[in-house]
Amino acid sequence: MSAAPAELASDPALCVDAGRLVRRLEAFARHGARADGGVDRPALGTAEIAARGELVAWGRAAGLQPYTDRLANLFLRLPGRTDEAPVLAGSHIDSQPTGGRYDGTVGVLAALEAVAAIRAAGIVPQRPIEVVAWTNEEAGRFAPGMMGSEAFAGLKTPEQLLPVTDAARISVGAAVACVLSADRDVPQRPLPGRAHAFVEAHIEQGTVLETAGVPLGIVTGIQGTRRYRIRVTGEAAHAGTTARPDRRDALMAAMRMISALEDLTRATADTLFTVGLFEVKPNAPSVIPAEAFFSIDVRQADDAVLDHLGAAIPQALRDNAGPCAVDVREIAHARSVAFDAGVRRTLYEAAAAVGAPAIDVFSAAGHDARSLAWLCPTAMLFIPCRGGISHHPSEHAEPEHVVLAARVLATTLVRLADG
Amino acid sequence: MSAAPAELASDPALCVDAGRLVRRLEAFARHGARADGGVDRPALGTAEIAARGELVAWGRAAGLQPYTDRLANLFLRLPGRTDEAPVLAGSHIDSQPTGGRYDGTVGVLAALEAVAAIRAAGIVPQRPIEVVAWTNEEAGRFAPGMMGSEAFAGLKTPEQLLPVTDAARISVGAAVACVLSADRDVPQRPLPGRAHAFVEAHIEQGTVLETAGVPLGIVTGIQGTRRYRIRVTGEAAHAGTTARPDRRDALMAAMRMISALEDLTRATADTLFTVGLFEVKPNAPSVIPAEAFFSIDVRQADDAVLDHLGAAIPQALRDNAGPCAVDVREIAHARSVAFDAGVRRTLYEAAAAVGAPAIDVFSAAGHDARSLAWLCPTAMLFIPCRGGISHHPSEHAEPEHVVLAARVLATTLVRLADG
Repeated sequence: MSAAPAELASDPALCVDAGRLVRRLEAFARHGARADGGVDRPALGTAEIAARGELVAWGRAAGLQPYTDRLANLFLRLPGRTDEAPVLAGSHIDSQPTGGRYDGTVGVLAALEAVAAIRAAGIVPQRPIEVVAWTNEEAGRFAPGMMGSEAFAGLKTPEQLLPVTDAARISVGAAVACVLSADRDVPQRPLPGRAHAFVEAHIEQGTVLETAGVPLGIVTGIQGTRRYRIRVTGEAAHAGTTARPDRRDALMAAMRMISALEDLTRATADTLFTVGLFEVKPNAPSVIPAEAFFSIDVRQADDAVLDHLGAAIPQALRDNAGPCAVDVREIAHARSVAFDAGVRRTLYEAAAAVGAPAIDVFSAAGHDARSLAWLCPTAMLFIPCRGGISHHPSEHAEPEHVVLAARVLATTLVRLADG
Repeated sequence: MSAAPAELASDPALCVDAGRLVRRLEAFARHGARADGGVDRPALGTAEIAARGELVAWGRAAGLQPYTDRLANLFLRLPGRTDEAPVLAGSHIDSQPTGGRYDGTVGVLAALEAVAAIRAAGIVPQRPIEVVAWTNEEAGRFAPGMMGSEAFAGLKTPEQLLPVTDAARISVGAAVACVLSADRDVPQRPLPGRAHAFVEAHIEQGTVLETAGVPLGIVTGIQGTRRYRIRVTGEAAHAGTTARPDRRDALMAAMRMISALEDLTRATADTLFTVGLFEVKPNAPSVIPAEAFFSIDVRQADDAVLDHLGAAIPQALRDNAGPCAVDVREIAHARSVAFDAGVRRTLYEAAAAVGAPAIDVFSAAGHDARSLAWLCPTAMLFIPCRGGISHHPSEHAEPEHVVLAARVLATTLVRLADG
């Protein structure tokens, strides 16, 4: 924990409109609203197009200039005294199919309210300050996620990303074209982009802050991840007549593989292993499955352990294929990231200036800030979420914590843009 | 193997049109044709409606009278000298999604050719003889299968079966209404039906005949089956932030259950255990599955072993649920069946009369004949299928074996109808 230097008092002119932020957070949840109170807002889908349109309108009302790019990342720009690389703040507005109202969204709306407060205070910063909503963070529709931020940071090219398809065989390129066609007078800028610094506010998706009773976390870094798609190929055959030795059952092979990976990952400390996607073909009760297709998601803070697992996973899959064939494709490998000490110090100072307790936290989840960390000084601000629950309709964050994040962002962004 | 009594020579007037049978078998495969040469013809779907229309047309051309019932079973009737309960022969024309051209279809087309030969020979049998295509044998679309034959035999009522829905929530009742609306002048008869005897020709779906080099099998009986649907309920949560002890991962629980059932069933001799259907929700790579839904199919010739497994399966499922809830629903339980000695003897005599070698075989697969065995004297005739492969596009039976089955059926049906 860091104490605020005495000379860094909060700018009294920076008055975040708390009521409006809370109302907007409530209103924004209608985009992709689920009957159970959660949100289902797939990247580049119709609900996200409507949400995006509302952001543009809110931005324009606050005097900010919208622009976009070939990945449909959305920026709302407060011009600076110079045209230097901007300071960015934001997150994403897409959700998982069974998502909540806060993941991603709070980071975008808090940044918008912070920049609106800066504009309302009549501050013209040296560098532009921009609110950003990155495209497809979640990978709920198109995998892997973090597409917008990775393209912006130059980690991947549009040519690599635009051909990726969803389950309905719709490509990112086609979906982006659909989103951009809904834009009215939103200019495009080239990729990759440029940035002086990036700050992302987000719900913690863990219980460290809740347990400590602290409203803000200054994130030290993000654990590493490796993600795979596995296709097991056996042979369709009659469930009632095919003797055991003659079976090439893709589901049974997949089950053996997943069991082996469970053992492998449990043998290391703090590794998280998830199979979230699992499909069989032909998926008929009386037919031995000819194919199983599944995802593997491995998370680990220690890169050495993650490297060890990355070496062992393909072998474990092949060792358990039995009479089936297995195709192993690693679709993402992100090493663990440590955030910028300077941006983190500015966040601590801003938190102290608004009188908010803050502590160090580590992020178990991936975020767009991981992509930006390769491009510019980057850090994150966490607020608590109830019970650590996220990616679920019952996800909840306290409105007062979102407002606090917006206040810290306002002060932080002015300092970064003028520093 | 049984020798033919000398006095039972083949009726020389019963001349099955082999060329037409082979051409029709080829032509019929266009209904629901797959690009890979197989057949995807779901029960009560559009491809089956077209196939059914063709059967009615072929039946009428042969002088047979079509009729149907509330389950859309299709009958083609050769009137007898009396209106006594008819002798039935046939099978089904629906297929698995990755099905072949022979399963079910050969039994219907061979029976049609046999009855057409009886009519062409000017024979008017004492009892009517009817070709039948039973509705939804496969359970590929609506589960469980054998619906048409079970309703006909009075084992289940239309009120029990018509509300069953497919994956798209279309009910059997709605699908039957659609099929019946496509019928032109096909009268309906009440359920349950009546029958003097039933004979079903079918591919073996095993390798006993192929290995023995014998073209015909006279089936002794059918092994028992138990079928379940299992729903495992956990909780959706973030794959990257939810610690191991906090997870309620429905897929991992389902995997432990399936592994336990694999061990349980392998501990008994000759039990076949298949999970053909497996689905998770929300089925997103970064979300811990909240729900897993899967089928269990257990087959076993020994009813005592099947009873033992039926008692052990629900407990094994619950023991492996971990932090998840599990709902166990048994949707079908069919005890093993022994076919009628008299009908089997007639089949052996007919095989001998046409000069075809035949041996006893046991059926590992379920068939409509299992339902009919509760209503009337019943037996089955198997022909070899290459490599024992079925429920797969590469399924293959020799045309000459289908013709042989039609010849044996023709003689058998006349004897049963006059006997």
